[in-house]
Amino acid sequence: MAMPETPPRLVGDIDTPALVVDLDVFERNLSAMAAYFRGRRAQLRPHSKSHKCPEIARRQLAAGAIGITCAKLGEAEVMAAHGLGPLLIANQIVGRLKVTRLMALAQRADVTVAVDGADNVAELSAAAVAAGVRLPVLVEVDVGMGRCGVPSGPAALALCRAVARAPGLRLAGLMGFEGHIVDQPSLEQRERGCLAALALLEETRATVEADGLPVEIVSGGGTGTYQIAGSRPPLTEVQAGSYVFMDASYKAIDGMDAFDCALTLLSTVVSRPHERRAVVDAGAKVLSTDQGLPVPLGVPGARVGGLSEEHGRLDFAAPSPLRVGDRVSLLPSHCCTNVNLHDRLYAVRGERVEAVWEVAARGRAQ
Amino acid sequence: MAMPETPPRLVGDIDTPALVVDLDVFERNLSAMAAYFRGRRAQLRPHSKSHKCPEIARRQLAAGAIGITCAKLGEAEVMAAHGLGPLLIANQIVGRLKVTRLMALAQRADVTVAVDGADNVAELSAAAVAAGVRLPVLVEVDVGMGRCGVPSGPAALALCRAVARAPGLRLAGLMGFEGHIVDQPSLEQRERGCLAALALLEETRATVEADGLPVEIVSGGGTGTYQIAGSRPPLTEVQAGSYVFMDASYKAIDGMDAFDCALTLLSTVVSRPHERRAVVDAGAKVLSTDQGLPVPLGVPGARVGGLSEEHGRLDFAAPSPLRVGDRVSLLPSHCCTNVNLHDRLYAVRGERVEAVWEVAARGRAQ
Repeated sequence: MAMPETPPRLVGDIDTPALVVDLDVFERNLSAMAAYFRGRRAQLRPHSKSHKCPEIARRQLAAGAIGITCAKLGEAEVMAAHGLGPLLIANQIVGRLKVTRLMALAQRADVTVAVDGADNVAELSAAAVAAGVRLPVLVEVDVGMGRCGVPSGPAALALCRAVARAPGLRLAGLMGFEGHIVDQPSLEQRERGCLAALALLEETRATVEADGLPVEIVSGGGTGTYQIAGSRPPLTEVQAGSYVFMDASYKAIDGMDAFDCALTLLSTVVSRPHERRAVVDAGAKVLSTDQGLPVPLGVPGARVGGLSEEHGRLDFAAPSPLRVGDRVSLLPSHCCTNVNLHDRLYAVRGERVEAVWEVAARGRAQ
Repeated sequence: MAMPETPPRLVGDIDTPALVVDLDVFERNLSAMAAYFRGRRAQLRPHSKSHKCPEIARRQLAAGAIGITCAKLGEAEVMAAHGLGPLLIANQIVGRLKVTRLMALAQRADVTVAVDGADNVAELSAAAVAAGVRLPVLVEVDVGMGRCGVPSGPAALALCRAVARAPGLRLAGLMGFEGHIVDQPSLEQRERGCLAALALLEETRATVEADGLPVEIVSGGGTGTYQIAGSRPPLTEVQAGSYVFMDASYKAIDGMDAFDCALTLLSTVVSRPHERRAVVDAGAKVLSTDQGLPVPLGVPGARVGGLSEEHGRLDFAAPSPLRVGDRVSLLPSHCCTNVNLHDRLYAVRGERVEAVWEVAARGRAQ
């Protein structure tokens, strides 16, 4: 969708529902994470899946990030088109259509991908040779999440060897994401789980290097584990993404004190059918629910009673003075899926709208 | 996002993840609903919230629909820009920014809106007078859903009177949506609930007409209640939307035999980490979960074990022969929120892609 013709000047000029970024908080989050990684062995390659926004990726790179992690080829294409990188696509790229696009991207941008199977290695190798590129590849290890990845140890070594001898590919290292750990409530619990995951990666790194193969990159970690995974071997880069925005889910776990919530959904009360009920113009089409309901801010005694497609029901513990036309901000439960519902972000400082940022990679799931 | 430069010719040329519409099934659904309403007092004004796609609205009108129902002003603007209507925005339009846009739309298109409060009536009236339009308005009655709407009876009558005497507005009738009924599993249960909801509307209609005010339109109903609400007073139009696509939720309730599932999400297997597990390239950013997980089709013994943002995990009861690169279709749990995640629909007949339809109103939540 095209940008609005006249960007709003003040928050009061933003039509609703709209996703709003508090720039003061956002910039503090950006700086806090950059400060954490300054001078460390592990560096930050933040995940663009959380924002899908080239302007935010540009600011992350300006703050010291060593590159951008992407979830999808389409996301990487958008980042590359904005001159942003180097790029890591932290996923398997499979099939003729996508592999053709990947090689075209590799001809014009610095892009690394993950693999976890020999057939995919053969497919990428043949295409890379045909395209005249040498594609850097990470072997993905399952560090306990039970999603993608080969088992650590011999299976990982065998796949690393297959990559190393595949024409057109270059073994660049390993990847392992502890997605089953990052949202556990206690930091101590996450530390235990993350160390177990890191041990599998470290064991694999040692095995692969003992075989004479290079392991330049070891990528993993998320916002919930950055201070565990980022402070010890074997990671060389951390993929945290949500830290720039935060959300109700991440703020509910401990150890997230360095970051505050910068992202809110601005809504308008459209109906006051009952003294203890208000309806806002924001439902499940603008607020994601995969990690639960959003949280109303600045409205004492209110909770979200439910979302239908385009309505949010606020329930009050006591009669509320809210009026039709009043505005209510809601804290998303999960920033990554919530941003994916929107075409733009309104970047505000106090009451002033400083910029409207395009979520240019929204919907780029292919 | 721009349309792809070369539309795919065959289903095998569609990159994944992608939403696919089976045209044979879609056309049967369209015809079945049109046939139901032929010659009835109640007519069909299908809800565009389910598809947000001007091409589908155009086909619904060609099949006999008397207009298009929209959830949002932005959706109505898109439909009007494609020359589609007359339009009913089945929601309250609140606040200076939106009311200004509504009046601009009313100057160039036939658009009706809902109201449920006196302040909003005053706001619309002043703006309509300033814009030189006479805006048709439905008074929304809460028929038991507990969302928007005034209570039936005296409160509804008072608001109808306020509309009728407001300069710039024209009382066009009543609206009441039994959203708490449409997805109940048994048809008998839905019949009971729907008749109770209709009784509230009928009582209000009689009260308002006895007061000498016109009730030309009574709008309500959904896909789950079309054959109840559409066959007896007081409805003059039914807002059903999901019937064109259907989904796992609607097919799980009884009485939906006239319709089949036309909408599927085409995915590709990107990882086979275990003989009883496959991972596809489709997660919560392309498959909505507000009504549960999608259902894999044509893969015996498989179920969706979970969705992360860009991955879908398929779990198998027994070892599966699926290979990396194989394609798997998934049936969305809720078509309306699922379509809202996509920029286009691939309309296919057998193995041939006949068209790529733009979901032009996707993201038009303002």
